[in-house]
Amino acid sequence: MPEIRSNAVTGDWVIIATERARRPEEFAEKKRRPALPAFAPECPFCPGNEDKTPAERFRVPAAGGGWLVRSVPNRYAALTAEGNVERHMEGFRSFLSGVGLHEVIVETPAHNLNTALLPIAHLEQVLGAYRHRLRAFYEDPRIEHVIIFKNHGEAAGTSLHHPHSQIVGMPVLPGQLRARLEEAVRHWGDRGECLYCRSLQEELHDGTRMIAENASFAAFVPYAALSPFHVWIFPKRHSACFGDVSDSEVSDFALVVHEVLFRLHVALEDPDYNYVIRSLSPQECAVKYFHWYLSLIPRVTRTAGFELGTGMFINVALPERSAEFLRGAILPD
Amino acid sequence: MPEIRSNAVTGDWVIIATERARRPEEFAEKKRRPALPAFAPECPFCPGNEDKTPAERFRVPAAGGGWLVRSVPNRYAALTAEGNVERHMEGFRSFLSGVGLHEVIVETPAHNLNTALLPIAHLEQVLGAYRHRLRAFYEDPRIEHVIIFKNHGEAAGTSLHHPHSQIVGMPVLPGQLRARLEEAVRHWGDRGECLYCRSLQEELHDGTRMIAENASFAAFVPYAALSPFHVWIFPKRHSACFGDVSDSEVSDFALVVHEVLFRLHVALEDPDYNYVIRSLSPQECAVKYFHWYLSLIPRVTRTAGFELGTGMFINVALPERSAEFLRGAILPD
Repeated sequence: MPEIRSNAVTGDWVIIATERARRPEEFAEKKRRPALPAFAPECPFCPGNEDKTPAERFRVPAAGGGWLVRSVPNRYAALTAEGNVERHMEGFRSFLSGVGLHEVIVETPAHNLNTALLPIAHLEQVLGAYRHRLRAFYEDPRIEHVIIFKNHGEAAGTSLHHPHSQIVGMPVLPGQLRARLEEAVRHWGDRGECLYCRSLQEELHDGTRMIAENASFAAFVPYAALSPFHVWIFPKRHSACFGDVSDSEVSDFALVVHEVLFRLHVALEDPDYNYVIRSLSPQECAVKYFHWYLSLIPRVTRTAGFELGTGMFINVALPERSAEFLRGAILPD
Repeated sequence: MPEIRSNAVTGDWVIIATERARRPEEFAEKKRRPALPAFAPECPFCPGNEDKTPAERFRVPAAGGGWLVRSVPNRYAALTAEGNVERHMEGFRSFLSGVGLHEVIVETPAHNLNTALLPIAHLEQVLGAYRHRLRAFYEDPRIEHVIIFKNHGEAAGTSLHHPHSQIVGMPVLPGQLRARLEEAVRHWGDRGECLYCRSLQEELHDGTRMIAENASFAAFVPYAALSPFHVWIFPKRHSACFGDVSDSEVSDFALVVHEVLFRLHVALEDPDYNYVIRSLSPQECAVKYFHWYLSLIPRVTRTAGFELGTGMFINVALPERSAEFLRGAILPD
């Protein structure tokens, strides 16, 4: 029989549709990824083409010259970097000027590398760049909220192959974050504990959905995973802000992100995926009820009218089996 | 400059990304729709194959025998029809047995018809079937909420060509509906008016985003449309429940749904789309703060990490231009 599980963090229900369930290996669709060169002359993110992007805001320099990671304004930014945030009310309508920050974080000079295959030391530089840009974005007084995300593959919404992530700073608080904060505040008010710390304890104690763990982080398929192979990576130390992570925590974060991406890559044959880092601002690190984390959704199924009309998800894979499948992926030596 | 518009109904912000904007006609991607026969021997929804579906629950009979519309349990139901709703608490975890109703409404015997091209009198029968099944679902005491939806085309999540819609009855209230109700109650508390009635008045008064209108309904691209060509169809008479519509209102509903689907079909060359009908139960028709409506999203763009991580949408088409484009679609005589 299907189960309707409560997702404590979103406050919503998820249908675990066991009647529709597919075996985990059936999600490993063959992708038609083109064979890519290490350098693509027309790619704005390839070395030598630095003048094809707006002026760089940050780089991790390479030892012998050049760069390992760089962050540049998005040429097709959703929001414009110049101007003041002005709020307008026209009777019933309200709108703001679309001011904000939007950068692309180029993860590597190599056009044809896959983020899942980046050396761990290099991935650490990418995550360090995330931390740097998040802190910098929050220094802009116009910015209320910053989101870091990655789109990998066409089903995840990108057609650019060169490995990259994005960071957007907005002058408003997204409704979804407001809702998450409301759930978290309610739990904290009721039980005097961080909802996320508690969820993490439960997952560690249960163990059936764990994928990877080290001193600072745990990765697991959540109890009420929204979709097959949905993964959360939680820091073990309570903090509301990703900008607060120490250098050694960035190292541990790189280890666990690498392991999750690599296991997905092997088990599902390089699936399309999105991940996001949800965080409050550095000024809010000490907030007791919220906890920063990374959420990863492989795009192995499609959302349709049901999800659109209810906001609920139908997950056609049992979370425990998804986790077991990822744990069992045979990794090369 | 982009605008960040407030969507009064969802309570969230939408980025209208004018810098990324495309011309309306650029969304009219050529679909690779296969040429279909009027009858497909292997299709469970084609006449003569009635025994390939679970036992029929409802039909609109055809004058000369056979049927015009039928509703059958979904063979791949997300929820199971048998059993009691049982709530389980296991420490921090809570779940329900996955009990509910899930039917497929087969819209026409013709395998190769397109819903946008159904004769209006026939579409009226389809919408009448929706009303019938919604009322019937709510008679089951296990059901807390019913959603009607349609997935058209692969990008909208269906690979079945035979025109069909779906209806799901759940034993829980979806979080998204709870959030909509909270927004609506707040507005009603603050201003003593239905948020939806007010939104409709504003759209009718403004006029720039209207697409179609008759005595009982209005169709428009909302001020803070979530995506290009997003359309809302609102009944003019306040009611919280679709099950409450009269026969003459069903006729008017068919006229406006047909006009919207047909204009999309012509202007965007048969786009993939989802639509949903949001409604409370027949027992709640008189609720003052909620208003049933239909929401339609053509799947002409993809959501990615930004939407996943914020719940906000980036709309790359100005709603006023989307509406103008649909109004200007040249319809055959």
